[in-house]
Amino acid sequence: MSYKVAIIGASGYTGAELIRLIATHPEIEIAALGANSKAGQTIAQVFPHLRHLNLPPLVTMDQIDFDQIDLCFCALPHKTSQEVISQLPKTLKIVDLSADFRLRDPEAYEQWYGNPHAAVEMQKEAVYGLTEFYRDDIKNARLVAGTGCNAATGQYVLRPLIAAGVIDLDNIILDLKCAVSGAGRSLKENLLHAELSEGYHAYSAGGTHRHLGEFDQEFSAIAGRPVKIQFTPHLVPANRGILATSYVHGDAAKIHETLAAAYKDEPFIEVLPFKELPSTRHIRGSNFCHIGVVADRIEGRAIVVAALDNLTKGSSGQALQNANLMLGIEETTGLMLAPCFP
Amino acid sequence: MSYKVAIIGASGYTGAELIRLIATHPEIEIAALGANSKAGQTIAQVFPHLRHLNLPPLVTMDQIDFDQIDLCFCALPHKTSQEVISQLPKTLKIVDLSADFRLRDPEAYEQWYGNPHAAVEMQKEAVYGLTEFYRDDIKNARLVAGTGCNAATGQYVLRPLIAAGVIDLDNIILDLKCAVSGAGRSLKENLLHAELSEGYHAYSAGGTHRHLGEFDQEFSAIAGRPVKIQFTPHLVPANRGILATSYVHGDAAKIHETLAAAYKDEPFIEVLPFKELPSTRHIRGSNFCHIGVVADRIEGRAIVVAALDNLTKGSSGQALQNANLMLGIEETTGLMLAPCFP
Amino acid sequence: MSYKVAIIGASGYTGAELIRLIATHPEIEIAALGANSKAGQTIAQVFPHLRHLNLPPLVTMDQIDFDQIDLCFCALPHKTSQEVISQLPKTLKIVDLSADFRLRDPEAYEQWYGNPHAAVEMQKEAVYGLTEFYRDDIKNARLVAGTGCNAATGQYVLRPLIAAGVIDLDNIILDLKCAVSGAGRSLKENLLHAELSEGYHAYSAGGTHRHLGEFDQEFSAIAGRPVKIQFTPHLVPANRGILATSYVHGDAAKIHETLAAAYKDEPFIEVLPFKELPSTRHIRGSNFCHIGVVADRIEGRAIVVAALDNLTKGSSGQALQNANLMLGIEETTGLMLAPCFP
Amino acid sequence: MSYKVAIIGASGYTGAELIRLIATHPEIEIAALGANSKAGQTIAQVFPHLRHLNLPPLVTMDQIDFDQIDLCFCALPHKTSQEVISQLPKTLKIVDLSADFRLRDPEAYEQWYGNPHAAVEMQKEAVYGLTEFYRDDIKNARLVAGTGCNAATGQYVLRPLIAAGVIDLDNIILDLKCAVSGAGRSLKENLLHAELSEGYHAYSAGGTHRHLGEFDQEFSAIAGRPVKIQFTPHLVPANRGILATSYVHGDAAKIHETLAAAYKDEPFIEVLPFKELPSTRHIRGSNFCHIGVVADRIEGRAIVVAALDNLTKGSSGQALQNANLMLGIEETTGLMLAPCFP
Repeated sequence: MSYKVAIIGASGYTGAELIRLIATHPEIEIAALGANSKAGQTIAQVFPHLRHLNLPPLVTMDQIDFDQIDLCFCALPHKTSQEVISQLPKTLKIVDLSADFRLRDPEAYEQWYGNPHAAVEMQKEAVYGLTEFYRDDIKNARLVAGTGCNAATGQYVLRPLIAAGVIDLDNIILDLKCAVSGAGRSLKENLLHAELSEGYHAYSAGGTHRHLGEFDQEFSAIAGRPVKIQFTPHLVPANRGILATSYVHGDAAKIHETLAAAYKDEPFIEVLPFKELPSTRHIRGSNFCHIGVVADRIEGRAIVVAALDNLTKGSSGQALQNANLMLGIEETTGLMLAPCFP
Repeated sequence: MSYKVAIIGASGYTGAELIRLIATHPEIEIAALGANSKAGQTIAQVFPHLRHLNLPPLVTMDQIDFDQIDLCFCALPHKTSQEVISQLPKTLKIVDLSADFRLRDPEAYEQWYGNPHAAVEMQKEAVYGLTEFYRDDIKNARLVAGTGCNAATGQYVLRPLIAAGVIDLDNIILDLKCAVSGAGRSLKENLLHAELSEGYHAYSAGGTHRHLGEFDQEFSAIAGRPVKIQFTPHLVPANRGILATSYVHGDAAKIHETLAAAYKDEPFIEVLPFKELPSTRHIRGSNFCHIGVVADRIEGRAIVVAALDNLTKGSSGQALQNANLMLGIEETTGLMLAPCFP
Repeated sequence: MSYKVAIIGASGYTGAELIRLIATHPEIEIAALGANSKAGQTIAQVFPHLRHLNLPPLVTMDQIDFDQIDLCFCALPHKTSQEVISQLPKTLKIVDLSADFRLRDPEAYEQWYGNPHAAVEMQKEAVYGLTEFYRDDIKNARLVAGTGCNAATGQYVLRPLIAAGVIDLDNIILDLKCAVSGAGRSLKENLLHAELSEGYHAYSAGGTHRHLGEFDQEFSAIAGRPVKIQFTPHLVPANRGILATSYVHGDAAKIHETLAAAYKDEPFIEVLPFKELPSTRHIRGSNFCHIGVVADRIEGRAIVVAALDNLTKGSSGQALQNANLMLGIEETTGLMLAPCFP
Repeated sequence: MSYKVAIIGASGYTGAELIRLIATHPEIEIAALGANSKAGQTIAQVFPHLRHLNLPPLVTMDQIDFDQIDLCFCALPHKTSQEVISQLPKTLKIVDLSADFRLRDPEAYEQWYGNPHAAVEMQKEAVYGLTEFYRDDIKNARLVAGTGCNAATGQYVLRPLIAAGVIDLDNIILDLKCAVSGAGRSLKENLLHAELSEGYHAYSAGGTHRHLGEFDQEFSAIAGRPVKIQFTPHLVPANRGILATSYVHGDAAKIHETLAAAYKDEPFIEVLPFKELPSTRHIRGSNFCHIGVVADRIEGRAIVVAALDNLTKGSSGQALQNANLMLGIEETTGLMLAPCFP
């Protein structure tokens, strides 16, 4: 049995990554590709690396017959996404990759994104898409909100530790090193090769990055009290990858045990042996997340480092994993591609 | 039905690439991994990006029971390869990725590689592994010699043109731009990141690169007369990819037609529309080869450009494609992974 | 004695490179920085790497008092440049870095650039800025037209060989590998880090690149007959550098001798020992050009490779070298910075 | 007046960087280049980017006549350095770039470096080379110990804050992102381009990096009590640069004021306007250090980020700055080169 999916926003990087993954998925077929700004073009024109695939041409959203579609991936910018999704059939299964349905609280949404939410009722319906922690809800969901790629990485480190009470909730620092594809295919001077390669810097420092909205929502819910972490992302000259270095107060061995236990049956989350640390090069192009734990020389402090691919596990791979669950397909289908190294 | 394979030389890049590809191959199982220098280690220690795979530990070659093996990939350095392969059971199917069995003429081998061949009789038995042109022979072969990665790229451009007589045989220039993984996992100063990134240069210029032995052998055989091309490789700061820019004398439109006709049924060779040119970024991590043709402003001259991934179509992907044929598996199995972009 | 210069178009890469070089020049002072689109900003806002310099803020062109200026560098886009320069005082010394005054023939200009020239009389006045070959004219010039960066590289290889009659004029191929800063600080999708890094491709193939206008003009003048070369540039993932691989028919030893003799007194052109080849990493950030010669295995054919930094010797370094000559300053002043490696 | 210097260990990256800087220094002349393993070679063979310089050939250490030398730079590996330096004339001015004389306490040295110190008495004589804080001692020193590149970066952030008492001494985290040239020209698998580019990771995590010895020594001395910081370096795919992200408890505005006041007369340390953050791309190839301060959303916490070039301000630039002081030359001579961007 084969399911038909549409991808809206197919001309961006997360759209391309969805197509790359679905290309070898045995039970899902891409029936429609929406991209308003590039409608009329073939996939070979927009993404020459996908030219070997037999895919429909890009169309505008209103040219898609959603009655023929079992599930729709929305890979649009935030704000646009909520407007578009509120126009889609109310029975259509949707995996949204944007930020629009990640926050359940309309006020929190407005605080972090600067505009009132245009589809408040759907905000409530949406299930948060961090598969390992919302698996059962996702199976039954109609609308799943993919997590932010930074937010996913940080949560893989911290959720089990907060839940188990093995770290101090008031001393959590997350220092992230992010590859450039996380910024999307946008024409900005600082994303040019000549500007970005050979240099790196911190951005959105001091607690201003929007993914903090997700951290606050999720960590506070787990802890049963407000939890505020410190979070500084850095842009590094690589295309794919997020490396999260987390500084926490707690016993390193217990932290390692807690993480190992939490993820021992998870197909995509690998907790490395105690004292080993991950590298983004070892998860590139794959749906895997590697986590390592080291004790600091200062007693009672530990460093936890996680690595994942922002486009795969941090976005499109996660989206496909959730789509598998929503469609009743085995969860790992199409997602077992090994990382591409070197 | 599942076939059991061994990979000897599993700790190099072509070994890792074979494992990456076979990881999602439905009909081939890796039963043994040989790597003398790293015997005793797990794959996670040698290639952390493959740690999620359930693979046997690395062993020395004499620990492998070849009676249990349907086919053996040899990813060893040249010269070592001929010594090792001549010790293997004479009935074992072998795909050799080294240079040792590419040249049929022992003198040519000695000329290009500097030492007499240690297994001359097997040189004769070996079938040249450029799948699209030796497919039927490969199906029935016991020993297949994988082509050089540069040699494959150049031949995809030039074989059909020489065969069809549409270019001048005495004016063929091949200017190659090669990524660094083609040099293997070898500890050389000029392969360090600090040396190589941000710079590029020509090497083995003037007709001294060993892959010329393959060009001479193959092109002369096709033409029925000696053909000598000019060939200059360049090392560029990227990990995967070969871009071959070929300058030929001939009618560009006819050249394009000839190539399009030659490859129209090939699953992995894509001839782009006339006047479009390929990029290595659009085949990275895949088994595809893209070819483009442009007419020069000087009448009667054309530029043909081909791009492929040296580790995949130029080496391990080609090897797996040939193994599929030798084992009676559908040729494209396990090889339809889309390129990894960005 | 100190000369005052203005830089118009100071917010682009060639503008920044001029400032970098002049920053340690003992006899030139930057008195005005023009950049219409960023007027009112400080240099620290536009180029934070220059923040330590005590420079005037960016202004619009009409805010500059050219009476106080001894020489003006124009680092504007072509077409804009001719319009702006024709408005400047007729006695002002000008070094133009754009393409606008490189071609002496108005028809050739229109053919390559697609619009009629707006300052035809100044086209005739302009001296072509390839210092080593127009030194005496440049000393006395009022308006010097900087060469194209690709055009400079190709000419360093070919001018002495054409002049000496040691190569076949009908079989000249120039295969260029260009770093990305040559494309300027322009917001194009294919210049994004995520698109460009890890891949490379040919562009403007087949004789359509505008720098061919310069090659045609100069080489035909030297030869005293029309000379048309083949020229294909490639974009590689590095920030600075041009590597020109030239395939010529001629005796390699004689070619090497000819080049060595031509450049033996030149401070910035280094001809390597016969059979050694240059790398862009060894000239990065400097005004040097390295040239190497190798004989091909086919008798009577040679490969000549040149490397220079497109922003320095290919553009802003050349401009400063010419300005030194025009102002009566020792030619190498401010230009002896060693390359930045690694 | 011109001073004669020798560089021992001239074939490594810090040796090359010293030569690059001294190449345009008006008062220092390189009289001898020592490099035991490459003795007999010219600089053009070891570092082709320096081929334009008129330099003596590389020799073994015992071929150098130190009577003719005013100052000697030692750019040797640690441990070798102490052995070599203890053999040099006792009156020779020396700037050591290794780790051997950074720690004053022999036990601390043995703890961090694993071997007893072979020249304990010289350990006491040596002056710590962080110019801005030991300027007067350096002027009168015979032996100056260059700081670690990471150690320098961290101290530029933290010394004024500890001295002023504006941060909590028990909650200091330093997360460093280091470019690869810091690892030297060493043949290690993980420094290969194919391994390193496109990926990044933490190393020496948990308080095991040797530069902690310097932090402990210096910060404890300033505070008058033991201070232990947390410090995790990360390797990123770039050639030059260190970005130090420091998480501290204290008032951000006061921290900014403190730093701005501390460095207001320093020629190479630039404190950015409050809330602006530095990037390594803006100091590459230069002796400048940029520092920025941002308040966290959690009251009483701040992020301080510093960027410098590990080869220049972190090593060879610092060494030359100290040599200037020791020789009575104006401190900034030869060091005002602007950063090389893009």
